[in-house]
Amino acid sequence: MIRIAIDAMGGDFAPREVVHGAVLAAREYGVSVQLVGIPEQVQNELKRHEIQGLSISIIPASEVVAMDEKPSKAVLRKKDSSIVRAMQQVADGLADGVVACGSTGAAAVAAQFIIGRIPNVMRCAIACEMPTIHPKRCIVVDAGANVDCDAQMLYQFGIMGSILYSGIHNIKRPRVGVLNIGAEETKGNQLVQDAYRLLKETDLNFLGFVEGRDFPMGKVDVVVTDGFTGNVSLKTAEGIAKMVNHMLRQELLSSMRGKVGAMVAKPAFKALKARVDPDEFGGALLVGLKGVCVIAHGGSKHTAVKNAIRVAVDMVKADVVKNIEASFFLTPKEKAEKSVAKT
Amino acid sequence: MIRIAIDAMGGDFAPREVVHGAVLAAREYGVSVQLVGIPEQVQNELKRHEIQGLSISIIPASEVVAMDEKPSKAVLRKKDSSIVRAMQQVADGLADGVVACGSTGAAAVAAQFIIGRIPNVMRCAIACEMPTIHPKRCIVVDAGANVDCDAQMLYQFGIMGSILYSGIHNIKRPRVGVLNIGAEETKGNQLVQDAYRLLKETDLNFLGFVEGRDFPMGKVDVVVTDGFTGNVSLKTAEGIAKMVNHMLRQELLSSMRGKVGAMVAKPAFKALKARVDPDEFGGALLVGLKGVCVIAHGGSKHTAVKNAIRVAVDMVKADVVKNIEASFFLTPKEKAEKSVAKT
Repeated sequence: MIRIAIDAMGGDFAPREVVHGAVLAAREYGVSVQLVGIPEQVQNELKRHEIQGLSISIIPASEVVAMDEKPSKAVLRKKDSSIVRAMQQVADGLADGVVACGSTGAAAVAAQFIIGRIPNVMRCAIACEMPTIHPKRCIVVDAGANVDCDAQMLYQFGIMGSILYSGIHNIKRPRVGVLNIGAEETKGNQLVQDAYRLLKETDLNFLGFVEGRDFPMGKVDVVVTDGFTGNVSLKTAEGIAKMVNHMLRQELLSSMRGKVGAMVAKPAFKALKARVDPDEFGGALLVGLKGVCVIAHGGSKHTAVKNAIRVAVDMVKADVVKNIEASFFLTPKEKAEKSVAKT
Repeated sequence: MIRIAIDAMGGDFAPREVVHGAVLAAREYGVSVQLVGIPEQVQNELKRHEIQGLSISIIPASEVVAMDEKPSKAVLRKKDSSIVRAMQQVADGLADGVVACGSTGAAAVAAQFIIGRIPNVMRCAIACEMPTIHPKRCIVVDAGANVDCDAQMLYQFGIMGSILYSGIHNIKRPRVGVLNIGAEETKGNQLVQDAYRLLKETDLNFLGFVEGRDFPMGKVDVVVTDGFTGNVSLKTAEGIAKMVNHMLRQELLSSMRGKVGAMVAKPAFKALKARVDPDEFGGALLVGLKGVCVIAHGGSKHTAVKNAIRVAVDMVKADVVKNIEASFFLTPKEKAEKSVAKT
């Protein structure tokens, strides 16, 4: 049975919504869930649910890292915080993956401190799923962990993103593209130009440059970008989807015909909402770590928490960490060659 | 009567759609339109329309800059091209504004060469309108002219964007924000941090940082960003709006109920489409120039061309160029002080 640890105290609606989502996940996916947090509070929430026959345990922690604390300081100081203890479960081999809701910064710092980076991976990156017109979502790497990147980092994001996508969707050679302001080879800044050259030399299914309008239309599976651009692009996508939804409602409610049409077509609107609702995709993955770590956003309610656990389970099943490790593993000979090349 | 020159040979559907759009604009806005292009071709298209009583003239040009030519080379070499001649109309004071469709690069290069930059403006920028949930759109500056920016440039984009928005919407102090990955003061890279500090010192209505999800929700009027991030964000917005539209259609057509609902609520869907359709906003403005210049995208059909002319007319009426000039004007004393400060 796959074991997932979850920081039960993280996020705006913790512990209630986290515990609720965890119970749903334990039931739906048949996984073992470890709720990490202040025992009495978690216990009180658990009482609200029917949990007989489910594999749910409580791992005690006495402290909580708040959303507004400085991540690195908080993680270093609060050794008995729920986020630190949850990560520790993975580091100690007691859980196969961890889910954190709440401060992305604190989760990323804690994960890198406690679980650690895969050797030869320069930086961990956030991989985030994005809806497309196709049933399969695309993945954006990096979605915000590294605001300043160099080309070598983008190159590594491409490799890790490709392995991640392969694992989750069981596809051999996902299509990888670098996010740019035009598809032509000559376009863009130095960073994307250099990343292009590096990725072209790999055996990835590299399509070259893609534009912001390409990935929602499903033209690519893995979108490689620096954390600044990736974050802006993802949040723009979120905002525009919300805006269109809002406008649609405005227009439908502004006339009797619209209201009637909306009532008749209600199931279609519900289906649409499910396809673009960020709560349904589950959360961001931290790639490059020696363990599975999913970060759900701070406003996560039970559905989002449940889906974040599903993503963690998918990652574990797909052996993503082992595959990235294998891809970045250097033989002693390769290592020696690399250090010679550097000097 | 306001006079607008338009490159009749630019874009994927030139001269047909350009001439069509120009005729519509002449009729609807009561402006004088100068069609710059190969006379026989333009004449042939004009024959398809009822133009009696409209102020439409043809300005001859013998060459055309193609979409795939390198902008700077093409503009320098093809002195008698329609794009160069159209810009020349403004430079010579024979037109109040110019509209170019097609290669944004060629139009930007030609405009800067021929019309020229306002003194003390470091770089021209592309200002692009974006739909929001409110009737008033917001403006993104820079939407793609400068892939590498420094903080001083972003600071100038903020000032120019604010003047532009004031002029178009007749609002005293539009809300200005710098696009970032978080709203907190400590977030982001060096560029946005430095731009924040500079803009905070101005008398603009500066809100600080805004995220990609904020501007579609109408939280800000002017979004300041470098051309790389701005372009990615805008194209993401375009792609996501298209994706949601596509999904909505898929969902509605997948059931009888959906089909019926869609038929009943058809006017609402049409209204929604008009609000998010890029053809309706008209095109990008080149700000920082000593003249009004609007760039419509290469795929513009007549509605987009007509709306691009409307935007040019609005810019002329609002005296945007004069206001930017006044804002960047330095007295001889200020100039002397500035050059001392530099050394």
